[in-house]
Amino acid sequence: MFSKNNPKIGSRPGTLAIPPGSPPPKITVVQYDEAGVDRREVNDPAELREIRGAERVTWVDVQGLGDEPLIRAIGQAFDLHPVALENAVNVPQRAKSELYEQHQLAIARTAVLDGSVVRTPQVCFIIGPRYLITFQERYFGFFDPVRERIQAGLGAIRNEGADYLAYAMIDAMVDRYYPVAQHLSDRLEELQDIIVDQPHPDVLARIHVLRRQLVVLRRIGWPQREAINSMLREQTPFFSDRVKVFLRDTHDHIAQIVELIDSSREMASDLAEAYLSNVSHRTNEIMKVLTLMASIFIPLTFVAGIYGMNFEHMPELHPRHGYFLVLGVMSVLAIGMTVFFRRRGWIGVPPPPDFESDDEPKDP
Amino acid sequence: MFSKNNPKIGSRPGTLAIPPGSPPPKITVVQYDEAGVDRREVNDPAELREIRGAERVTWVDVQGLGDEPLIRAIGQAFDLHPVALENAVNVPQRAKSELYEQHQLAIARTAVLDGSVVRTPQVCFIIGPRYLITFQERYFGFFDPVRERIQAGLGAIRNEGADYLAYAMIDAMVDRYYPVAQHLSDRLEELQDIIVDQPHPDVLARIHVLRRQLVVLRRIGWPQREAINSMLREQTPFFSDRVKVFLRDTHDHIAQIVELIDSSREMASDLAEAYLSNVSHRTNEIMKVLTLMASIFIPLTFVAGIYGMNFEHMPELHPRHGYFLVLGVMSVLAIGMTVFFRRRGWIGVPPPPDFESDDEPKDP
Amino acid sequence: MFSKNNPKIGSRPGTLAIPPGSPPPKITVVQYDEAGVDRREVNDPAELREIRGAERVTWVDVQGLGDEPLIRAIGQAFDLHPVALENAVNVPQRAKSELYEQHQLAIARTAVLDGSVVRTPQVCFIIGPRYLITFQERYFGFFDPVRERIQAGLGAIRNEGADYLAYAMIDAMVDRYYPVAQHLSDRLEELQDIIVDQPHPDVLARIHVLRRQLVVLRRIGWPQREAINSMLREQTPFFSDRVKVFLRDTHDHIAQIVELIDSSREMASDLAEAYLSNVSHRTNEIMKVLTLMASIFIPLTFVAGIYGMNFEHMPELHPRHGYFLVLGVMSVLAIGMTVFFRRRGWIGVPPPPDFESDDEPKDP
Amino acid sequence: MFSKNNPKIGSRPGTLAIPPGSPPPKITVVQYDEAGVDRREVNDPAELREIRGAERVTWVDVQGLGDEPLIRAIGQAFDLHPVALENAVNVPQRAKSELYEQHQLAIARTAVLDGSVVRTPQVCFIIGPRYLITFQERYFGFFDPVRERIQAGLGAIRNEGADYLAYAMIDAMVDRYYPVAQHLSDRLEELQDIIVDQPHPDVLARIHVLRRQLVVLRRIGWPQREAINSMLREQTPFFSDRVKVFLRDTHDHIAQIVELIDSSREMASDLAEAYLSNVSHRTNEIMKVLTLMASIFIPLTFVAGIYGMNFEHMPELHPRHGYFLVLGVMSVLAIGMTVFFRRRGWIGVPPPPDFESDDEPKDP
Amino acid sequence: MFSKNNPKIGSRPGTLAIPPGSPPPKITVVQYDEAGVDRREVNDPAELREIRGAERVTWVDVQGLGDEPLIRAIGQAFDLHPVALENAVNVPQRAKSELYEQHQLAIARTAVLDGSVVRTPQVCFIIGPRYLITFQERYFGFFDPVRERIQAGLGAIRNEGADYLAYAMIDAMVDRYYPVAQHLSDRLEELQDIIVDQPHPDVLARIHVLRRQLVVLRRIGWPQREAINSMLREQTPFFSDRVKVFLRDTHDHIAQIVELIDSSREMASDLAEAYLSNVSHRTNEIMKVLTLMASIFIPLTFVAGIYGMNFEHMPELHPRHGYFLVLGVMSVLAIGMTVFFRRRGWIGVPPPPDFESDDEPKDP
Repeated sequence: MFSKNNPKIGSRPGTLAIPPGSPPPKITVVQYDEAGVDRREVNDPAELREIRGAERVTWVDVQGLGDEPLIRAIGQAFDLHPVALENAVNVPQRAKSELYEQHQLAIARTAVLDGSVVRTPQVCFIIGPRYLITFQERYFGFFDPVRERIQAGLGAIRNEGADYLAYAMIDAMVDRYYPVAQHLSDRLEELQDIIVDQPHPDVLARIHVLRRQLVVLRRIGWPQREAINSMLREQTPFFSDRVKVFLRDTHDHIAQIVELIDSSREMASDLAEAYLSNVSHRTNEIMKVLTLMASIFIPLTFVAGIYGMNFEHMPELHPRHGYFLVLGVMSVLAIGMTVFFRRRGWIGVPPPPDFESDDEPKDP
Repeated sequence: MFSKNNPKIGSRPGTLAIPPGSPPPKITVVQYDEAGVDRREVNDPAELREIRGAERVTWVDVQGLGDEPLIRAIGQAFDLHPVALENAVNVPQRAKSELYEQHQLAIARTAVLDGSVVRTPQVCFIIGPRYLITFQERYFGFFDPVRERIQAGLGAIRNEGADYLAYAMIDAMVDRYYPVAQHLSDRLEELQDIIVDQPHPDVLARIHVLRRQLVVLRRIGWPQREAINSMLREQTPFFSDRVKVFLRDTHDHIAQIVELIDSSREMASDLAEAYLSNVSHRTNEIMKVLTLMASIFIPLTFVAGIYGMNFEHMPELHPRHGYFLVLGVMSVLAIGMTVFFRRRGWIGVPPPPDFESDDEPKDP
Repeated sequence: MFSKNNPKIGSRPGTLAIPPGSPPPKITVVQYDEAGVDRREVNDPAELREIRGAERVTWVDVQGLGDEPLIRAIGQAFDLHPVALENAVNVPQRAKSELYEQHQLAIARTAVLDGSVVRTPQVCFIIGPRYLITFQERYFGFFDPVRERIQAGLGAIRNEGADYLAYAMIDAMVDRYYPVAQHLSDRLEELQDIIVDQPHPDVLARIHVLRRQLVVLRRIGWPQREAINSMLREQTPFFSDRVKVFLRDTHDHIAQIVELIDSSREMASDLAEAYLSNVSHRTNEIMKVLTLMASIFIPLTFVAGIYGMNFEHMPELHPRHGYFLVLGVMSVLAIGMTVFFRRRGWIGVPPPPDFESDDEPKDP
Repeated sequence: MFSKNNPKIGSRPGTLAIPPGSPPPKITVVQYDEAGVDRREVNDPAELREIRGAERVTWVDVQGLGDEPLIRAIGQAFDLHPVALENAVNVPQRAKSELYEQHQLAIARTAVLDGSVVRTPQVCFIIGPRYLITFQERYFGFFDPVRERIQAGLGAIRNEGADYLAYAMIDAMVDRYYPVAQHLSDRLEELQDIIVDQPHPDVLARIHVLRRQLVVLRRIGWPQREAINSMLREQTPFFSDRVKVFLRDTHDHIAQIVELIDSSREMASDLAEAYLSNVSHRTNEIMKVLTLMASIFIPLTFVAGIYGMNFEHMPELHPRHGYFLVLGVMSVLAIGMTVFFRRRGWIGVPPPPDFESDDEPKDP
Repeated sequence: MFSKNNPKIGSRPGTLAIPPGSPPPKITVVQYDEAGVDRREVNDPAELREIRGAERVTWVDVQGLGDEPLIRAIGQAFDLHPVALENAVNVPQRAKSELYEQHQLAIARTAVLDGSVVRTPQVCFIIGPRYLITFQERYFGFFDPVRERIQAGLGAIRNEGADYLAYAMIDAMVDRYYPVAQHLSDRLEELQDIIVDQPHPDVLARIHVLRRQLVVLRRIGWPQREAINSMLREQTPFFSDRVKVFLRDTHDHIAQIVELIDSSREMASDLAEAYLSNVSHRTNEIMKVLTLMASIFIPLTFVAGIYGMNFEHMPELHPRHGYFLVLGVMSVLAIGMTVFFRRRGWIGVPPPPDFESDDEPKDP
């Protein structure tokens, strides 16, 4: 689940735990104001220091973390707090929001379905007065639509500051939870019919797989909600009240998603119960047939056994109609027991009960 | 459940996610004061701007959302915040209350039983200083009684402001939860007898259906309660303390409904347990018959088998009364085992225990 | 459960939802101070207005709500807020406490066992500066001891104000929860033995009945606790700090009762589990007998079947002692299997394990 | 559980509910300062008033409550609030702390194992400026070590005030929870082995007994924690900050004990699950033997039955080796089915799986 | 679990409960500033008083607690509050943070896997203005990396105060939880396959063992989180805001670990359910075979029994093809029933259902 790559235990704070396998950083700088947009790749960290002083809104997008000296150089260029920098490269982490003196840090995670596995990539946002830095473990492409909007100058984005840009990105990440939660919920709905028709243990296994995915989703969704909530409440110079109004909306989205997840989890529990009940119903049906067969034929076989005995003196064997009499007695026995069982409701599947009252509630 | 129609991911904030299939808006404006009532259909959004300036209380009822430019025009006429407008057309959402600079937004949902499905239509209220705008996805008719009361001038409604009107409508929506919750609770009560008489797996399926409806109901009821609670607590210029006294009563109603839902859910769990216990009791009864039959007749059949063997030298076969002796032994065996089983309580359904102590508690 | 008689949906606030079947009001006014007590029946609401101005503590006891104009007249005489009046006649409601400008409203409910049904009658208290109004759906007689105490001048009651009177009544109502909770708890204790001796499905049904009563009790007890708690915390001119000290004690009582209810509910869950375990233990015992019988006799019967075959050439049939040899082999088989089963612990009920260590804990 | 002796319902507040059977009070007064200790029995309540004015720290220990006038006299001598006095004799109550104008009241309960019953005796502390009054239902001897410490002048106790004395006693009471909780936890540990070896229903009954004791323990432990917590937080003139530092430690003890209780309760649930699983595993094993026996011998018996039929023309009966051929066929059938069952894993207990990976976790 | 060695009940506060078996203390003093490091063993407590006055940061590491006078001497040298000293030697305790006038106390616990047992050694930190004292029950070696870093002058540690040193140690202890939690989580993952292939009761036992370890881990992890959180919130002169920024990061780590533990516990519950379901599925399969065998052969055997009877007049026995006719009838019966059972799905394991829809969720 968490394949966390902690630094060595007892190592000094500030050690950067670069996730192994992370590609070398690709740094893209986008600078814009109402008038226009500049975009370029930066390879020399020295350029960054000068970028920082710019008048225009500056977005530094760092994709890939696999070069510790470069990451440190970025940190120095923007005077990032050592703990903030450590957080920026530490993958995975809970979503959170932390205020430092010179900038605010926000960790956001999103959810992506990769086959039947829920992946939860993470982005770290450093929000400064006029700049935004994003750190991504690898190239995810979440922010392509945002970049296009900046380029095209659509909507308000070019008139707003770095806080609005951060908001737009976090909002885009939160929006991605929804289809995943919905997908899991839909898969559970599908299982409902299968449970009745094919109560195979794989169904339960699958319910558990879905439940586990829901647990993963909730485990990242809940701190996300908390993080956004604390961004709304914090007295921060880096988020204007104007942008907080938008962020409040993102908070509502994630709250709604968490609720959907919770009710899906409850549904999963119900399905598991329904599955187990169905299995036991089936066993029950089989038991009933066995009981019927055994209970009817065992006594009959005994009667046949009696007259198969080789005693010399068995008066019943000699009369002309003895055989037919015994057959008759057996038939009566068989019929009697069948009737008895039917009365008890043990033969035949009972018709499902009639829930006729399922109409509209009367107005009280 | 939630067939939410989110805007495209990464789309810019402020995008209106008109629910697909929503009919074109029908705008009805009602203006009133103590002296009288005016009512007209508005088709040209330009009229709205002038309506806004009116002295009298103005209620703009927008039914149907299927015309984005028109919706935007309404938003501009009343200076609605882009996020508020986005919220107004976003269906479905959690009930909530949000304060903007120029108005307050409240989302309320109600519950309607449509066959066995719980529908939860949503209304968005925008409450301004002297005006109220309501957005409904389609024509629901919730507010017909309110409109009639305004028309007839019954009660206090004509003497009050837009806040009172909003309160009256939210109260009407909350009142509709009750019959639905009661209906589900009644259906559960009905199942109690069926569980005992006809423990068919459909009963469990039905319990789960009801439980799921209760979950849906609770999922909309709980945020509704929270939303009204936050309307009561918020320092808002759009709700007077006079109206808050009334709203507090609505809060008590929804709280009571949520409690009814919760105890119905507990009842559903009990019913599921009772069902499973009943099924297992039945299996038990069947097992007992099988055991009885098999345990009594298997040894007897064995005895018969013995004397059915064809050995040349079997002394028991020759005496005159050998056969009857063996029959006698078998009878003794059968009776002995029946007695043994009866003593163990395995034959016959035990009488239900006697709970005689069910009288009035003695005063301590 | 809640057979709530809501007003028609969308009806205007302030509509009085008189509970159907409520008898016409009987109004008793008691006025007292340290010097003496006056008591009379009031039939003309006009008298009430003048009563209100009295110097002495005034208790207006309204029993029965079945006369809307009269109720409204009472409301007007004491300037009751429309919402307060609506609350006064709305039955049933959650216990609550609400502060209005001119008076405080408190709803209290108590618990009474009527056969096996828990009834939860409700009283509404309106506490003003020098007066107390109580509304009861019908004549319950809860307050007879209080009235006698006023009459007799026992204790502090005649020296205190309307707040103390309200406290005394709410305390009396809370005291009534206790015997009901205790009664349910005692019934559960009784079931413990029955579960072991007579595991009939009715026992489970009864556990569920008791559990449901506990749920009802908790559903009214918990808001009662909250209501008293909020009366303690509220900045109210209608309850003096002196009386709050007494009320705090009532709060402790209801808290203790709620705890008793909660632990009874846990006990009910344990009992249900114990019942199910006992049933399955019994099934197990029966299974063991069946297995024993079948496993021992089925092979023996097979052996007998072998020698019952009619082949012409079966050498074992001819020796003089063949029959006895086969009987011997069968005995050996039977004994061997019995021993095998006994070793496995499948025959005979195992003695209950010995928990000898149940002595005093040693001091550490 | 709670054999609470409430006063008569509707009785006036201030009524003392002396626990029936409580012995007549024995009043011991201990007065001390750094210089020395005085100790005497007091029989005349008139002495108490003068004792109250003493300069030295005064501890009035009242053991036994069975004399209402005497208790009232004590109350008057120390100006106890009527509600406080009522609380002092009301047994049992939740642990709590309440501030009155002239003194603080604290109820503490402790836990004592009496055979298999958890008793929870209660002590009421009234803490005044220079005095401490303790009320005990009967003579428990909790405070003998404290009294000896005062006598011997060990530790700080003689230099401290009444608050420190109260702390020392409450601390002693809290310390007594621990061995009881530990004892119950140990009993649960013992059951673990018994569950595997002797899955008798008494084991489950015993788990439930232990669980119920844990519930009782938690029900008194949790309010105790709350009570001490509120003593720490309250702005009280009767507890100095110096003593609160010590009391904070007592709070930590009770918190730790409550945690131990909670994890024991979780363990009890696990044990119940393990028990039920073990029982069902056993049933399973028995089922497998039955199936094996029946499935192998039933077809063989049928074959034997075929050749036991008395048809005139059965060609198989005549060949010389027919009998041996049929025996051969039967053997093949038997072996074949045994092999089939073994392959399915239905014969023989499978070896427990190998959890070889149970070594030290590797450092990541 | 907790083998707590409380002091004797009722003993006076301040009594030191030295854990039995704790070795005699080894006191190592490390003093450092930016310029250099001094390290020496101290045997005479008198030296400590002078050490306390030093300008440089002083770390007094006390390993082993088995010498009460020495411990008391340390306490006196640093003016430790008696309760603080008592806490320092009391093992085990909940993690906590407590502020005293002259120093702050923090208890931290870490987790170490020792075979299959989770050990949770405890360290007590006393943080003063320029000094840090650590008390360890025995020599654990947690702090060797920290000591080396001080020695080597790596990182910021030599430029910082005692608070940073305490932070670095607590952080190192928290980091140790992670591999243990991960190890337990991995063991659970492994069990998933074993549950399907070898559903032996030992698997459930093992799940319970893991669950109990997770419970232990959570029971120490949760207070640890709380403790660090209260260190962050407390207004303390002993932790600078600079260091709190680092400590906030430690808080995030422990929060993440607690979440991992919680989701592992949920997984354990799922596994237990899956195990039980698998066992019951197996029983079901066995039942089906038994039913098949018995239901098919019991009637056939009965037919054979019929014609094994020795009646004189049984017309069916005489025809030439009677035998073959009967064999034919039996075959028809057997085939018919097999077909019937197959149709019902009782023969053959059904193929696992096809969950084809497991692809990427469509964008909505």
